Amino acid sequence: MTPLLLSTLDLVGTFAFAISGATLGVRKRLDLFGVLTLAFAAATAGGITRDLIIGAHPPAAFGDWRYLATAMAAGLVTFFGYEQVERVRNPVQMFDAVGLALFAVSGTSKALAFGIGPVGAVLLGMLSGIGGGMLRDVLVTEIPAVLQRELYAVAALLGATLLALGTWLGLPPAPTALVAALACFTLRYLAIRRGWNLPIATWRDPES
Amino acid sequence: MTPLLLSTLDLVGTFAFAISGATLGVRKRLDLFGVLTLAFAAATAGGITRDLIIGAHPPAAFGDWRYLATAMAAGLVTFFGYEQVERVRNPVQMFDAVGLALFAVSGTSKALAFGIGPVGAVLLGMLSGIGGGMLRDVLVTEIPAVLQRELYAVAALLGATLLALGTWLGLPPAPTALVAALACFTLRYLAIRRGWNLPIATWRDPES
Amino acid sequence: MTPLLLSTLDLVGTFAFAISGATLGVRKRLDLFGVLTLAFAAATAGGITRDLIIGAHPPAAFGDWRYLATAMAAGLVTFFGYEQVERVRNPVQMFDAVGLALFAVSGTSKALAFGIGPVGAVLLGMLSGIGGGMLRDVLVTEIPAVLQRELYAVAALLGATLLALGTWLGLPPAPTALVAALACFTLRYLAIRRGWNLPIATWRDPES
Repeated sequence: MTPLLLSTLDLVGTFAFAISGATLGVRKRLDLFGVLTLAFAAATAGGITRDLIIGAHPPAAFGDWRYLATAMAAGLVTFFGYEQVERVRNPVQMFDAVGLALFAVSGTSKALAFGIGPVGAVLLGMLSGIGGGMLRDVLVTEIPAVLQRELYAVAALLGATLLALGTWLGLPPAPTALVAALACFTLRYLAIRRGWNLPIATWRDPES
Repeated sequence: MTPLLLSTLDLVGTFAFAISGATLGVRKRLDLFGVLTLAFAAATAGGITRDLIIGAHPPAAFGDWRYLATAMAAGLVTFFGYEQVERVRNPVQMFDAVGLALFAVSGTSKALAFGIGPVGAVLLGMLSGIGGGMLRDVLVTEIPAVLQRELYAVAALLGATLLALGTWLGLPPAPTALVAALACFTLRYLAIRRGWNLPIATWRDPES
Repeated sequence: MTPLLLSTLDLVGTFAFAISGATLGVRKRLDLFGVLTLAFAAATAGGITRDLIIGAHPPAAFGDWRYLATAMAAGLVTFFGYEQVERVRNPVQMFDAVGLALFAVSGTSKALAFGIGPVGAVLLGMLSGIGGGMLRDVLVTEIPAVLQRELYAVAALLGATLLALGTWLGLPPAPTALVAALACFTLRYLAIRRGWNLPIATWRDPES
């Protein structure tokens, strides 16, 4: 993949994540500033946290104005056209899966480049993919969806693991990244289609 | 403005922000430690986040004991004299507006000094002003007030933008900072007096 | 204490903190990923925050795979054996007190080693001990327990203060750390046994 293609896909993911934040903000009756903040948080908090942890100053979201501009565009579109955005919920979910795949793979790759070991890099790659959604939910006082249902973080984990593994084996970077991202996207796509979930612990409340 | 005056105003802002945290803590029936924590969080979380993002180690709140002492003083006053503090709610709101103006302007200025571009510096200046209040609300599981109502973040945004613009134009620093802070304070003051709010998206729930 | 003993105790604390996170996750009906995330967050968020603030990149939790492995083990044990884990709640609370003592003392010590002043180092030591539990609670939208009841943070504060004081007085490091950790553990132990709490502000709601 060329850098231009990668960079374009990165902004596509940013846009999709920002839509998910702005949509939740409108539903929770936040004001315009709140909706834009949730758009920005959902799109960038994962990458910002990763950058703080690996010591990349400043995080990309504050050093490259295109992330802010993309998130603001997504936020404004959602604010002024919420009913239309709701109607294309399915395509947005596809873009979100693209964003998840790209963020997981590029996040792992960036962590490895900063000298983090493979286990830590996989964790940080996954965090790049899911951190924005977690902050989005916490800001409107909901338990993060990723902790409760659907197969979402596991898809990010798969992509991150494949990338770290390929790098460790010395496989060529571009095809490795492509395969890792496709695996993440495919697993997330199948999980949406088939309604896959992780198990929940079964127990009897000893107090009842 | 002399450094002494600036530093004094900074601690005035810290005190006012800490009062807002401690007041919420008392209302939520936190214990003494919880009230002091909310005072410290409200007063310092915005600046700490900014310093982490720009790579200023350690953040001022951990390197200068006067911030802790000021926040603790505000917390103790509120804990032991809550009813009296509630009675002077209006003056406290004025101090809070002073704090917002100072934090927005000094935050932008510090971000620029660390080599952040103008767009990122404006974001970080605004975050310096509103971040403490956001963490304060999240810690007691309320949706941050700044995302829902009143014209608060926009005032910080105005001050931050004017400072970045003046710096970019090469205007003399002190008058630029003064004008930017006054603009932020004035907008916030008018918003309180006149009850200005940002719009909320209008939509019909497609499921109802 | 030998480094091996210290390191073992550190992982014991990590295990106990992770149990507290996983237990809450099971109670809140999170899925397997959610339970493991809460285990990891409770065990490591305090230390990660401290490391970000003092500029130690990467935080230990991402640079040493044993923390992740320990937290995952605790999470899996709790997920698949929740009823049994609930039955040993009292021993777990003892391990948690050990973890609190170790994290408070080692956190203060690390902050001092990174050149933070005594006041900031005490704050960061306490934060190392209580930060994980705070994030654990915020992620499931509960007001952090440490802000509301029991004598928990104060025990961490005592341990951190004794360590900073001993270091400032030039006392030999190992006995200082031992005494500080024992003081923290003892205070926490007595607080559990006797049900000690901090005061809550008393006030009459002026609106009622």
